Amino acid sequence: MPQIGIILGSASDISVIEKGTPVLEELGIEYEVAIASAHRTPSDVENYAKNARARGITAIIAVAGLSAALPGVVAAATTLPVIGVPVKGGAIDGMDALLSIAQMPPGVPAASVGLNGAKNACLMAARIAAATNDKLTAKLEAYSAKEAAKVRDSRKKLENLPAAPAEAYR
Amino acid sequence: MPQIGIILGSASDISVIEKGTPVLEELGIEYEVAIASAHRTPSDVENYAKNARARGITAIIAVAGLSAALPGVVAAATTLPVIGVPVKGGAIDGMDALLSIAQMPPGVPAASVGLNGAKNACLMAARIAAATNDKLTAKLEAYSAKEAAKVRDSRKKLENLPAAPAEAYR
Amino acid sequence: MPQIGIILGSASDISVIEKGTPVLEELGIEYEVAIASAHRTPSDVENYAKNARARGITAIIAVAGLSAALPGVVAAATTLPVIGVPVKGGAIDGMDALLSIAQMPPGVPAASVGLNGAKNACLMAARIAAATNDKLTAKLEAYSAKEAAKVRDSRKKLENLPAAPAEAYR
Amino acid sequence: MPQIGIILGSASDISVIEKGTPVLEELGIEYEVAIASAHRTPSDVENYAKNARARGITAIIAVAGLSAALPGVVAAATTLPVIGVPVKGGAIDGMDALLSIAQMPPGVPAASVGLNGAKNACLMAARIAAATNDKLTAKLEAYSAKEAAKVRDSRKKLENLPAAPAEAYR
Amino acid sequence: MPQIGIILGSASDISVIEKGTPVLEELGIEYEVAIASAHRTPSDVENYAKNARARGITAIIAVAGLSAALPGVVAAATTLPVIGVPVKGGAIDGMDALLSIAQMPPGVPAASVGLNGAKNACLMAARIAAATNDKLTAKLEAYSAKEAAKVRDSRKKLENLPAAPAEAYR
Amino acid sequence: MPQIGIILGSASDISVIEKGTPVLEELGIEYEVAIASAHRTPSDVENYAKNARARGITAIIAVAGLSAALPGVVAAATTLPVIGVPVKGGAIDGMDALLSIAQMPPGVPAASVGLNGAKNACLMAARIAAATNDKLTAKLEAYSAKEAAKVRDSRKKLENLPAAPAEAYR
Amino acid sequence: MPQIGIILGSASDISVIEKGTPVLEELGIEYEVAIASAHRTPSDVENYAKNARARGITAIIAVAGLSAALPGVVAAATTLPVIGVPVKGGAIDGMDALLSIAQMPPGVPAASVGLNGAKNACLMAARIAAATNDKLTAKLEAYSAKEAAKVRDSRKKLENLPAAPAEAYR
Amino acid sequence: MPQIGIILGSASDISVIEKGTPVLEELGIEYEVAIASAHRTPSDVENYAKNARARGITAIIAVAGLSAALPGVVAAATTLPVIGVPVKGGAIDGMDALLSIAQMPPGVPAASVGLNGAKNACLMAARIAAATNDKLTAKLEAYSAKEAAKVRDSRKKLENLPAAPAEAYR
Repeated sequence: MPQIGIILGSASDISVIEKGTPVLEELGIEYEVAIASAHRTPSDVENYAKNARARGITAIIAVAGLSAALPGVVAAATTLPVIGVPVKGGAIDGMDALLSIAQMPPGVPAASVGLNGAKNACLMAARIAAATNDKLTAKLEAYSAKEAAKVRDSRKKLENLPAAPAEAYR
Repeated sequence: MPQIGIILGSASDISVIEKGTPVLEELGIEYEVAIASAHRTPSDVENYAKNARARGITAIIAVAGLSAALPGVVAAATTLPVIGVPVKGGAIDGMDALLSIAQMPPGVPAASVGLNGAKNACLMAARIAAATNDKLTAKLEAYSAKEAAKVRDSRKKLENLPAAPAEAYR
Repeated sequence: MPQIGIILGSASDISVIEKGTPVLEELGIEYEVAIASAHRTPSDVENYAKNARARGITAIIAVAGLSAALPGVVAAATTLPVIGVPVKGGAIDGMDALLSIAQMPPGVPAASVGLNGAKNACLMAARIAAATNDKLTAKLEAYSAKEAAKVRDSRKKLENLPAAPAEAYR
Repeated sequence: MPQIGIILGSASDISVIEKGTPVLEELGIEYEVAIASAHRTPSDVENYAKNARARGITAIIAVAGLSAALPGVVAAATTLPVIGVPVKGGAIDGMDALLSIAQMPPGVPAASVGLNGAKNACLMAARIAAATNDKLTAKLEAYSAKEAAKVRDSRKKLENLPAAPAEAYR
Repeated sequence: MPQIGIILGSASDISVIEKGTPVLEELGIEYEVAIASAHRTPSDVENYAKNARARGITAIIAVAGLSAALPGVVAAATTLPVIGVPVKGGAIDGMDALLSIAQMPPGVPAASVGLNGAKNACLMAARIAAATNDKLTAKLEAYSAKEAAKVRDSRKKLENLPAAPAEAYR
Repeated sequence: MPQIGIILGSASDISVIEKGTPVLEELGIEYEVAIASAHRTPSDVENYAKNARARGITAIIAVAGLSAALPGVVAAATTLPVIGVPVKGGAIDGMDALLSIAQMPPGVPAASVGLNGAKNACLMAARIAAATNDKLTAKLEAYSAKEAAKVRDSRKKLENLPAAPAEAYR
Repeated sequence: MPQIGIILGSASDISVIEKGTPVLEELGIEYEVAIASAHRTPSDVENYAKNARARGITAIIAVAGLSAALPGVVAAATTLPVIGVPVKGGAIDGMDALLSIAQMPPGVPAASVGLNGAKNACLMAARIAAATNDKLTAKLEAYSAKEAAKVRDSRKKLENLPAAPAEAYR
Repeated sequence: MPQIGIILGSASDISVIEKGTPVLEELGIEYEVAIASAHRTPSDVENYAKNARARGITAIIAVAGLSAALPGVVAAATTLPVIGVPVKGGAIDGMDALLSIAQMPPGVPAASVGLNGAKNACLMAARIAAATNDKLTAKLEAYSAKEAAKVRDSRKKLENLPAAPAEAYR
C-alpha cells in the first residue's frame, strides 16, 4: 500500500517529480502518482484528497505551476499534510506558483518547498513518515551521511585550485 | 433577478467590493453578493458557480486575496465569464493574488482587474451585459462622459499652479 | 459577421494569438484580427474600438507587450468588454505588460489573462458570448469535458511511475 | 510531553507565533517554544534540533525573518519534518525570508507556509500528527467544519449589500 | 508663454507635481499645468499633445500612476520630448507605473525619472531648455552649486557623531 | 560637429547602441560615441560630461548595465539633459540598471528609457534637438508616418487569420 | 586617529548610521562621519575616498538610498574595502539601493550589507580591523558572546507560552 | 600560508569562483578553496570557520546559491570578515541568494557582492589585505590603472561608429 500520494496538476509535471521519486524508492517508501487538475478535473482532485487517508496515505505532495491552486484545493479536502512543489516557468521565474502555494489563508495549510523542489518534497514526506518510525529515521540518517560524504568527496574536483587541507575542516 | 454574481472569499473583502457596487446601482444593474471560500467552503463555491447561470447570472466577479484560488475554482465550475479582483495586502503588495488570478492554465480562463479593482470589475461586468443591450450601452456612454466631465472639472483644483488654457485641449 | 475582435499591437504578436484562435474556430465563433498600435497608429486603434460594437463585435481581445497601453486605450474608446493578453518578454518576464493591462484607473476597465494567455482570452470571450447563448454554453461544456478527458487520459503517461488506481479518483 | 517543537529566531517573533499556538491548544496538542538564533546561538539551535526527536517531538516549526537561515539549519541537524514561518518585514515584504526558507538545496528539505503564517504552520504540524491519529483527525475535521460555519455565518455581515439567497449555495 | 507643459493624469497628482514646479519658478522658466486622462479624456490628451509645440512648448512632463499610459500616449501625438513621472502607490511600490513609462515600444520614446520624481522631471525639462540657452545654463550651474553647498552645510547636523575634518574633502 | 553625445560604460555595450544609432543617421543628426566607465575611468567620464556642452553637444545618452552609475555620474558633471539606457542582463532582467538610472536623488536628474532601449534613447535625443528645429521636427513627423505605415503594411502578414477589413480602422 | 570612515550621501541618513556607530564605540574603534553626495558633491566624495588611506582609514562604510551610486563611486577612487549600506525607502522596499550597491561591474568591488544594515556594516568594518588585531578579535568574541547571552536571556519573555526546558538546548 | 579562505557550498560553484581567483594570483595573494555545505556538512563549515583565523586566514569568501545560508553560518562561527557571492540561477535570477546573504540579522554581518561576483569578492578580500599593506595597495593601484587602460583601449572597437575624439576626455 502506498504511503505517500503524489498528485500532479498536469502530465507535463512528470519530469519534475521524477527528480524526486528515486529518493522515495531508495528509502523504501511506497508511493503512488495521480494526475488531476484543480481547474480541469476538480472533482477528481477532491475525490483523491478525500479518499487518501482511508487508502493509507499519510502525506500528499502536490505539484503545480502557474496559479498553482492544486495544493490548496487538496488541503481543503483532506486533513493530511500537503506539501506543494511550485513548478518553474510561469511568471517571474515561477514565483507565481510559489506564492500561490505558500500564501494560503489561515485555517487551511499548505507548505511549499522550493521551485521544482521535487526531491525535497519527497524527503519532507519521508521525514513525516519517519517522525514515528525509527527504522526510517535510521535510513534518513544514512541518507544524510551519504549526502555529506558526497560533498566531502567532491573536494577532489578542486584539481585546478589550491584545496584547503583536511585539517581545516576538523 | 440579479444579473451579476459577486463572490467574496471572506467577509473581510466586503469593504473592497463596496468600492465597486455603487456603479452597478448607478447603471441599474441588479447584482447579488455571496461569501464562500475556495478553501474553507469549497462546496459552497462550487454550488454557487454551478447554479449561477440557471439562476440568471451572466457574469461572476470573484474577490480574493493571498493565494486567491477563488476565481479559478469558480471558473472551473461554470461556463460564465469570471472576473477576478485581487485584494492588496498579501505578499509584494498583493502580487500573490494578482498572479494567482491571471496565471490560470490554458483551458480555464479567469481575467484579472487591478489590485482592489472592484469598480473596474463591476464596470467590466456591466460592459459584458451591455455588449448585447443598447440601453445599457447608452448608460455606459453617459457614465464615461460623466467621468470625462469630472476630469475636466477637476482642472479647477489647479488654483496654485498656472493652468493650461482651454484652447490647449481643443 | 465576426463576433470577437482581436487587436494586436504588432505583427510580431501573431504567433501569440495563433495559440488561441483555434479554440474560437472549434467553438464556431467568428472573429477577426486587426493590427494597430496604441503608439504608432493610435487613430487606427481608436477607430477600430469606436466602430467595433456597431460592426457586431461583442468583445475585444487586445494583445500587447512591454508597456502594453493597447488594452487600456481600446477600453477608453469603446463600451465593449476588453480582455488584455500580456506578451512575455519585456521586463521581469512580461510583468511590465501584465501590470500595465490590469492596473487601469477606476472607471475604465480592462481585464488581464496570464502571460501569453491567448487561449484563455479566446475562451473568456467565448464565455461572454455564451452567457446569453445556450447553444454556445453547451459547446463550452463539451469543451471542458474534453479537457477533463484529456487530463484523465494523460495518466497513461505515468508508465515509469506507480500510478494511483482508478478508484482513488472516485 | 510536547509533541510539536517551535523554535523562534528571536524573542521579537513571539507575537508572530502567538497567532498560531491557540490552534494547537484548541486541538489538545502539546507543544513547546524555544528561542535560539541560527546566527547568534547556532550551537543551541543545533542541539535543540538534534535532541528533538529523542525528546518526543515529531515536527518542528521554525520562525524567522530576514535571511531566515533558521529552518534550514534546523533541518540540517534533524530528520524531523521542519516547517518554516517567514516573518514579514525585511526586504520586498518578507520575500527574503520566504525564499530563504523554501529555496533549500536538494537533499535537505524545509517547507514554507505563507508570510507570518503561524496558524497554518501549527495546523500543518497538527496534520502531520493526525496522519496516524484518528482522534486528532476527527478534531481537525471538526475544526474545518467550524471554520466553514464561520464563513457561512459571516454572510450576515452583508447587511448593506444584496446577499445571495441560501439556495444559491446548494 | 509657457515653455514647459506639464500634464497630469488626475487632479490627485497635483500634490506630486507641486514638489517639482518650484524649481521651474526658481529658474525663471514658464510652465503650465494641464489635467487630462489617457483613459477618461483621451481626446483632450491627444489635442494637448498635438497643439503643444505650436503653442511654444518645448518639452512635456507627464505624471501618471498605475498603468500610466499617459506619457506614451502623449509621446505618440507629438514630436516633443516627453518625460514621465511615475506615481508611487499602485503595485509593487509604483513599479507598475515606472515600467509602463519606460518600456515603450521602439519608435515612440518616453523617458522616466524616478518614482514621484517631479523635481527631477522639472530639472530635466530645464536642462533640455538650457542646452541651447547659456543664461539658463548659468542658472542651472548656480542651482547645482547651491545644492552642493546645502550638502556641505548639512555636515553641521553631525553634532552627535565625530565629523570628518574639512581637509578630508580637499 | 556632433550634436548628440553617446557614452558607453563598456565596449560590450556597442551592440546595444548599434540598435539605435541608425535612426540618428536616418534623421541626419550627427553624434559621437565615447567609452568611459563610471567606476574604471571616472575622470574620463567627468571630463567628457564637463566638456560636452562647450563641444556642441546638446544631449547625452548614457548606456550602462548592472549598478549603472554612469548616467547619474554624467548628470552630476554637466547641465545637459542625460538619457539613460539600462542594459538587460544583470539582476531581475536588468531591473538593477533601470532602477539605478531612474531613481536619482532630487536635484540631479536622469531619465531612463526601457531596457536595451537604444532606439528610443536616440529618438528622445532627436526630439530634444527638434523642439527648437522645425526641419528636424518635419523629419520626425515623417519618421512617425513611416512607422505607422509599417504597422499598416504588416497587416498583410495576417494571411492565416481572418483580417479585419480596412473600414474597421476608419 | 579614526580607523573607519563613514560617508553618508545625505544628512537624512544620519538616523540610519546612528543605529550602527554605538557598536564601534563599544568596541573602542575610532571612526569619523563624512557627508558627501555622489551626485551633488562628487569631488568631495572623490577627495574623501582618495585621501582616506593616507589619513589612516582602513575601511569605508558608504550609506546611500535610491540609485545609491555612492559606494561604487567611493570604491572607484580608493583601494580600501568599501561596505555599502542600502537605505530602505526608494523602490520595492529599497531594492533599488541594494542592487545598485551589490551589482558593481567586475574590477571595482563594493559589498552590501542588508537594508538599513548600519550595525552590520560597522561590525563588518570591525572584523576587517580585527583580522590582524588579536585584542579587537577578543572584543568581537566577547561581543558575540554577549549577543548570544541576550538571546538566551530573552527566553524569559516566553511567559505566556510553554518554554522549552534548558536541557533541550544542551 | 593562504591568506584568503574561499568556501564553496557545492562543487558546482567551482566554475563560479574560477572567474575570480585569477585576480588573487595576479596580485600574489595566497588563497585556498574549501567545499562544505551549510546544510549537508554543517560541522565542516563550522570547523572551517572556527579554525580559519588561527590558520592565518584574514578574510573568508563564501559562495552559495538558492537559500544561501553559507555566508551567514560562516559569519556566525568566526570573527573574520565574510564576503558572500550569491550564485545566479535559483529564484528571480538569483535574488533568493543575494537577499539571503545581505539580509543578515543585526549583530552577525555578512556583505554581498553581486550575482556570480567572484572577481569582485576576490578584489574585496584583496582590498581588506591591502588596507594595512602598502605593497599590495600599490599592486591594487596598478590593477586599477590596467583596468582603466583596458577601457580606454576598447575605444578602438568603435570602428563602425563615430568615436569621440581624444580631447573629449581631457
